[in-house]
Amino acid sequence: MSITMHSASVPIFVRMLENCGHWLDKAEAHAQAKKFDPVVYLSTRLAPDMLPFTNQIQMACDGAKFAVARLAAVEAPKFDDTEATLAELRERLRATIAFIKSVPAAKLEGTEDKDVTIPRRAGPVTLKGEAYLKHFVLPNFFFHVTTTYALLRHSGVELGKMDFLGAIQQ
Amino acid sequence: MSITMHSASVPIFVRMLENCGHWLDKAEAHAQAKKFDPVVYLSTRLAPDMLPFTNQIQMACDGAKFAVARLAAVEAPKFDDTEATLAELRERLRATIAFIKSVPAAKLEGTEDKDVTIPRRAGPVTLKGEAYLKHFVLPNFFFHVTTTYALLRHSGVELGKMDFLGAIQQ
Repeated sequence: MSITMHSASVPIFVRMLENCGHWLDKAEAHAQAKKFDPVVYLSTRLAPDMLPFTNQIQMACDGAKFAVARLAAVEAPKFDDTEATLAELRERLRATIAFIKSVPAAKLEGTEDKDVTIPRRAGPVTLKGEAYLKHFVLPNFFFHVTTTYALLRHSGVELGKMDFLGAIQQ
Repeated sequence: MSITMHSASVPIFVRMLENCGHWLDKAEAHAQAKKFDPVVYLSTRLAPDMLPFTNQIQMACDGAKFAVARLAAVEAPKFDDTEATLAELRERLRATIAFIKSVPAAKLEGTEDKDVTIPRRAGPVTLKGEAYLKHFVLPNFFFHVTTTYALLRHSGVELGKMDFLGAIQQ
């Protein structure tokens, strides 16, 4: 099988968002063991001018959601960014995974040269589908996923590289 | 043009390792402005049991290097992991970029189903080329690149998302 625009995107998002759910489970267990309210995690930041934990998960989800919606030209579900508990963040992960799995792979195939326009504060920019996936979507997605993981490590949650990667299998 | 095993890997590594070099330039300027020795960055960690800055850059480089070497079945250059200054870390980035650019794209094409064996502490594991790239190489690579960026942000270096992504272009 050849690598494709779908195979190079959706399985990566699904795997990492599922892993993120497992980190939240471990974070909740850590909070229980240490007797603190897990809501504390949601406002942690790596630097005062970086976005907090909740936004990191929201943006990882949106990175995957908009990538699939824009490449496949389907409407993305709207999320209200109101998550205030670990349970609500888990639901955000679940809904995002459900959406990206629901889009038929065929809708993403052959989108390498499709024009994709990204809204930005500095003004919209248009990229070809493959450049969009490689140089915008994947770096952004992994940025927010890794920052989520780093915030939990910084908070003392016992996570390791195998938690980051998930089970290594075909 | 269809996405391929080469197009889905080497251009991502090159772009992000070049971006990493620019972060080091900004880190050096920040150290000069604040009058501290930039060698201080090299031992920073996000958590006491996470590897420090120097290792994050070494591992980002090695992630890219070994991915290309294993998929293309060429010998990887050996690096001694002795970097002790920002200049030496820049040289590691440069040498890694030079190596991965030197391997002909054709050697990576069609490696989706090739067996790739990864040495691990828990014992070697064999993956198909595409699964190796998507679920091991890219997450690992972005983990170390993002952690490098996060450590600099944590140290007060003025970096933003556009520094992380680099210039957005085709």
